[in-house]
Amino acid sequence: LSPVMFSGEAKCFLKYVFFSSGCRYVSKAAAKAQMEFDYDGPSMKTAVPGPRSQELTKQLGDIQNVGAVNFFCNYEESRGNYLVDVDGNRMLDIYTQISSIPIGYNHPALLKLMTNPNNLSTFVNRPALGILPPENFPDKIAESLLSVAPSGMTRVQTMACGSCSNENAYKAMFIWYRNKERGYKTPSDEDHSTCMINQAPGCPDLSILSFMGAFHGRTMGCLATTHSKVIHKLDVPSFDWPIAPFPKLQYPLEEFTRENALEEARCLEEVEDLIVKWRQKGKPVAGIVIEPIQAEGGDNHASPDFFRRLRDIARKHGCAFHVDEVQTGGGGTGKFWAHEHWGMDDPADIVSFSKKLLTGGYYHKDELQADKYPGILSRARGQGTFCAIDICDGATRDTILVKARDKGVLLGGCGDRSIRFRPALVFKEYHVHLLLNIFNDVLANHK
Amino acid sequence: LSPVMFSGEAKCFLKYVFFSSGCRYVSKAAAKAQMEFDYDGPSMKTAVPGPRSQELTKQLGDIQNVGAVNFFCNYEESRGNYLVDVDGNRMLDIYTQISSIPIGYNHPALLKLMTNPNNLSTFVNRPALGILPPENFPDKIAESLLSVAPSGMTRVQTMACGSCSNENAYKAMFIWYRNKERGYKTPSDEDHSTCMINQAPGCPDLSILSFMGAFHGRTMGCLATTHSKVIHKLDVPSFDWPIAPFPKLQYPLEEFTRENALEEARCLEEVEDLIVKWRQKGKPVAGIVIEPIQAEGGDNHASPDFFRRLRDIARKHGCAFHVDEVQTGGGGTGKFWAHEHWGMDDPADIVSFSKKLLTGGYYHKDELQADKYPGILSRARGQGTFCAIDICDGATRDTILVKARDKGVLLGGCGDRSIRFRPALVFKEYHVHLLLNIFNDVLANHK
Repeated sequence: LSPVMFSGEAKCFLKYVFFSSGCRYVSKAAAKAQMEFDYDGPSMKTAVPGPRSQELTKQLGDIQNVGAVNFFCNYEESRGNYLVDVDGNRMLDIYTQISSIPIGYNHPALLKLMTNPNNLSTFVNRPALGILPPENFPDKIAESLLSVAPSGMTRVQTMACGSCSNENAYKAMFIWYRNKERGYKTPSDEDHSTCMINQAPGCPDLSILSFMGAFHGRTMGCLATTHSKVIHKLDVPSFDWPIAPFPKLQYPLEEFTRENALEEARCLEEVEDLIVKWRQKGKPVAGIVIEPIQAEGGDNHASPDFFRRLRDIARKHGCAFHVDEVQTGGGGTGKFWAHEHWGMDDPADIVSFSKKLLTGGYYHKDELQADKYPGILSRARGQGTFCAIDICDGATRDTILVKARDKGVLLGGCGDRSIRFRPALVFKEYHVHLLLNIFNDVLANHK
Repeated sequence: LSPVMFSGEAKCFLKYVFFSSGCRYVSKAAAKAQMEFDYDGPSMKTAVPGPRSQELTKQLGDIQNVGAVNFFCNYEESRGNYLVDVDGNRMLDIYTQISSIPIGYNHPALLKLMTNPNNLSTFVNRPALGILPPENFPDKIAESLLSVAPSGMTRVQTMACGSCSNENAYKAMFIWYRNKERGYKTPSDEDHSTCMINQAPGCPDLSILSFMGAFHGRTMGCLATTHSKVIHKLDVPSFDWPIAPFPKLQYPLEEFTRENALEEARCLEEVEDLIVKWRQKGKPVAGIVIEPIQAEGGDNHASPDFFRRLRDIARKHGCAFHVDEVQTGGGGTGKFWAHEHWGMDDPADIVSFSKKLLTGGYYHKDELQADKYPGILSRARGQGTFCAIDICDGATRDTILVKARDKGVLLGGCGDRSIRFRPALVFKEYHVHLLLNIFNDVLANHK
């Protein structure tokens, strides 16, 4: 890795990335070894793809689609910054497997981890992590993924790839949104029966707002938010979800300050318009998903201010805000997460990752965990703005009232264990979202 | 593995499953070692979950959803048929990580493969297989996955997990179906522009027919065909796709021959009705997906005759037939693939796999590869049944005419390089599918 680009951050990768035993950091010695490990320059023997690559492409073509194959590689001989192909060509690799090599080819510290006998039983036994996790799982997650958790995120769900990470992040946003809509009540019998046959209200008509030029993966949920290339989307059924324009900035930035500010304002205005339109259509926007830099779509950037305002729009309209860091996470932008450039304490509700992190998953805020609160809430009732809900017991009710007040929401109690809601007559939909977000936060943190 | 259940098949697993170097088979000596490797029986020290598991569940609960955690495991100490937990309880495991352990815990042959230095560079460098595969990739796939390819399947696409395998199989079926609908013409400008914004015809309103009780995964495409438990589906938007009843057989089978035959006939009739209804709705069924045994849905079986008839219905209506062997593949049913019990030469168009195979993916017939034929076909034109298409040159045209005839379809040439279609006036929709399937087959095999 270029020491200029990354300064001290490069050596953090392994610490954060891998569920390593007794390998809490990569020492300076290891970083030095990596530098020495590099070849001294490119070395080209044939045109690329060379004859051996062409032969292998033909062979593979008999059993797989090879439309995208560039050439075949010799991964044993590849080192550091250099990828070696099967015809003996050695190339300085500035693409790194679509940004998926965490440090460099065959980094000695990674090789060591892979051959560490303590990690072996996890590799060969394929634990069903959700039901039968290994003993060291909580510690390893805490030492690795949680040690680089984005600001405001305390929970992480691991996944196998980037598409699965985004798919499941979307599901978490839908569940969170429906819970808000239901007032955190237990789902109804109708919810249960209709979801089994793909119908509303069990499978609700909710949407995710994405941006033109975005790439969030190729499974069908992700694909409905991907708008980068025809080849990804053509012939696959999709959802009628809103798509906003991503700013097209003019460069050099310092010469187009005014134009770019106007362009970003235009895109943000369109985002709000789409949220309102889709709500009116009966397909409310449960979440907004965005890449900090649109990579597949053309390396399109926007200013930190754009993202901060977008975050505010999401909050105002009660949409979850999902930052997709599958391509940008892991140090490539000069920060561990690209969203750190925005300088926010509360940059997102969900941050997904994969690629350089060699595993996949998403971080999320407490209130976006899939757990429900059926043990706490019951008997939701009301007429107009005159509403109430019962809490499991009086003491819990009182605690919730105090905690909500500490977060800036005034509620009243009534009866032994009820909470009464008496909003003003000028209470708007976004006030509802404000209330429910904070109320949810209180419930999520209730132990 | 119980020698009673598997006889000679157990030792085939590794050969087929893993991209092994110089490990083409597991010798009898290795199989013997595996038997000796087992503990001699269960040994329970505490109630399950024991105190250590409870402590770890609490710890993990702070960072992840632990609603599904049973207990924590000691994978280092687990061996063969026995799973050891963190409280020292040793259990005879008849669930094997939801059927995902290919042989037994910590099988010495698997450990050896994982520590083989020749495999190491593939593990640590995470090749982007679609664009930069390693040199041994074609050979390894041929030696492993293709050596157990289902009957009639010559191609395999690898994936990382079961959900991704099914998602991409569905996409292959949609693309195949749309190509048929387009008469193998190049997609139009309208196809291109509409697909980028999730609208038809680029993102067509096609459907996949699935069965009540099915489980095909949790990403949003798979989830639209999953109908086993509320917890998988609730609150996630879905597609309006047809769902057929899966036969409910009465046991013992020999006492209910007539009832079960009627039940299976009822379900098949419903399948045909749904295909017709959804076509009329404007959401044609591009594919039918089914598990040979519905596992998650309750271990529901149907007779080989049921599956053979279902396969015929798919063929008659021009739907692709996708057999999901994610849970059943790899030997657990006494055959390597459960569909082998149906005794068919042409059991499916697509077979997906994962779990026991330690990788994921799907096998498919030639005509379901995502490649198009823009270089071969052009100028599709016609009025009513009076249609024609041009072929790249006269020689190719003549070859295609002969090959189609060899497969039982009579076509005529006209002009230098055109094919003319002059079907009878009693030519029905299913004749169109018949024609297009065979025509596609000819084009797919054209080199």
